[in-house]
Amino acid sequence: MMTTDQRLIELGIELPHPPQGVGAYVPWIRTGNLIITSGQLPWKNGEIAYAGKCGKEFQIVEGYQAARLCAVNALAQLKQAVGHDWTQLVRIVRVEGYVHTAPGFRGHPDVLNGASELFNRVFGDAGIHVRVALGIDEMPLNAAVQIVVWAEVKS
Amino acid sequence: MMTTDQRLIELGIELPHPPQGVGAYVPWIRTGNLIITSGQLPWKNGEIAYAGKCGKEFQIVEGYQAARLCAVNALAQLKQAVGHDWTQLVRIVRVEGYVHTAPGFRGHPDVLNGASELFNRVFGDAGIHVRVALGIDEMPLNAAVQIVVWAEVKS
Amino acid sequence: MMTTDQRLIELGIELPHPPQGVGAYVPWIRTGNLIITSGQLPWKNGEIAYAGKCGKEFQIVEGYQAARLCAVNALAQLKQAVGHDWTQLVRIVRVEGYVHTAPGFRGHPDVLNGASELFNRVFGDAGIHVRVALGIDEMPLNAAVQIVVWAEVKS
Repeated sequence: MMTTDQRLIELGIELPHPPQGVGAYVPWIRTGNLIITSGQLPWKNGEIAYAGKCGKEFQIVEGYQAARLCAVNALAQLKQAVGHDWTQLVRIVRVEGYVHTAPGFRGHPDVLNGASELFNRVFGDAGIHVRVALGIDEMPLNAAVQIVVWAEVKS
Repeated sequence: MMTTDQRLIELGIELPHPPQGVGAYVPWIRTGNLIITSGQLPWKNGEIAYAGKCGKEFQIVEGYQAARLCAVNALAQLKQAVGHDWTQLVRIVRVEGYVHTAPGFRGHPDVLNGASELFNRVFGDAGIHVRVALGIDEMPLNAAVQIVVWAEVKS
Repeated sequence: MMTTDQRLIELGIELPHPPQGVGAYVPWIRTGNLIITSGQLPWKNGEIAYAGKCGKEFQIVEGYQAARLCAVNALAQLKQAVGHDWTQLVRIVRVEGYVHTAPGFRGHPDVLNGASELFNRVFGDAGIHVRVALGIDEMPLNAAVQIVVWAEVKS
């Protein structure tokens, strides 16, 4: 059986250094058996790689990539949260999906599948989660997507 | 003492088949003693029964009905989550209430009472919950309301 | 070591009577070891002290004060939730930060630091938390900011 690190390599994903927050908070926390991240933005090499709105600067295909990039950053946070030992992670629990939307944009589910499908591919059945999808008029740092991830870990 | 199913009959509520999600996620999940649903939309017979914005296509009275319908769908999810055994449900914990708002609409609390009051009627003291109410500019599938429900279940 | 009440006095903060909700819900709930508040608004003496949008009626400095005031109200809820015994509170876990934004406003993180920095000052290391920051187009009661606070308490 492949390890999570092997699976990431197979998917061509190199986890970045986990991004810091942009305020007086931390990027992840553990409470009980849950790890909860702060809002993850589509950072790449220290810049917001997708700055703009879905339905204006970006369409579904780029929105999907933005959500996937948020998920990659979330994975970097989770890896740190489990002390680089993925066997501590029981499963992904919840994805809060926030899409920076121009008026009339309705493709939230397709955009957020960029995050959800990545978790499903990396973790298999342990990547299955609940999701909420909201359109946001003004997003911090003009990011096209923001996600929050909840994961369950061993006691 | 009435059972939850008897109470639902008394209120004239027939739970639908629990709606599936519209993306790569599941409609509910259990973590620890919590059941958390994905975002519940005002589905009825496979269609979004309230498509539009509060303050434009709909006013408070229809928004209230839309929120109530989201709550009925959430009850269908919860019933499945407890294996059709309502005695496993300890209580409703939290309602996240998202209202699809036209500019200037301020009736979020009245709209979301359509969900909150239903939980209170169905479960009595066990239906009491915390709530957050937000206006959303662009909602998935143009739904007038979306809610997420958290419930506590027995160990 | 200073108690939380001494720290509040030092910071010049007098906790108000905890505000009631504006609908069919309660202001806080306990589930497991978590206390979760309902959405906290910038109430002061029974009125919304900051009614309007950040980027229109208010700029970052007032938005920061509005977020701080939401946090003061959240502290009042938490104090009630722990039965006025702050030693029961283990730490702040999560702040959900919602900023009422005019088009183009991007100062969410600075605004929400008004809440985050207060928790850090009052509780020290136990005030460190995760955060999500969203811009909301239409906020209940026209409030400039709304926050939800999660705290962990002893078993």
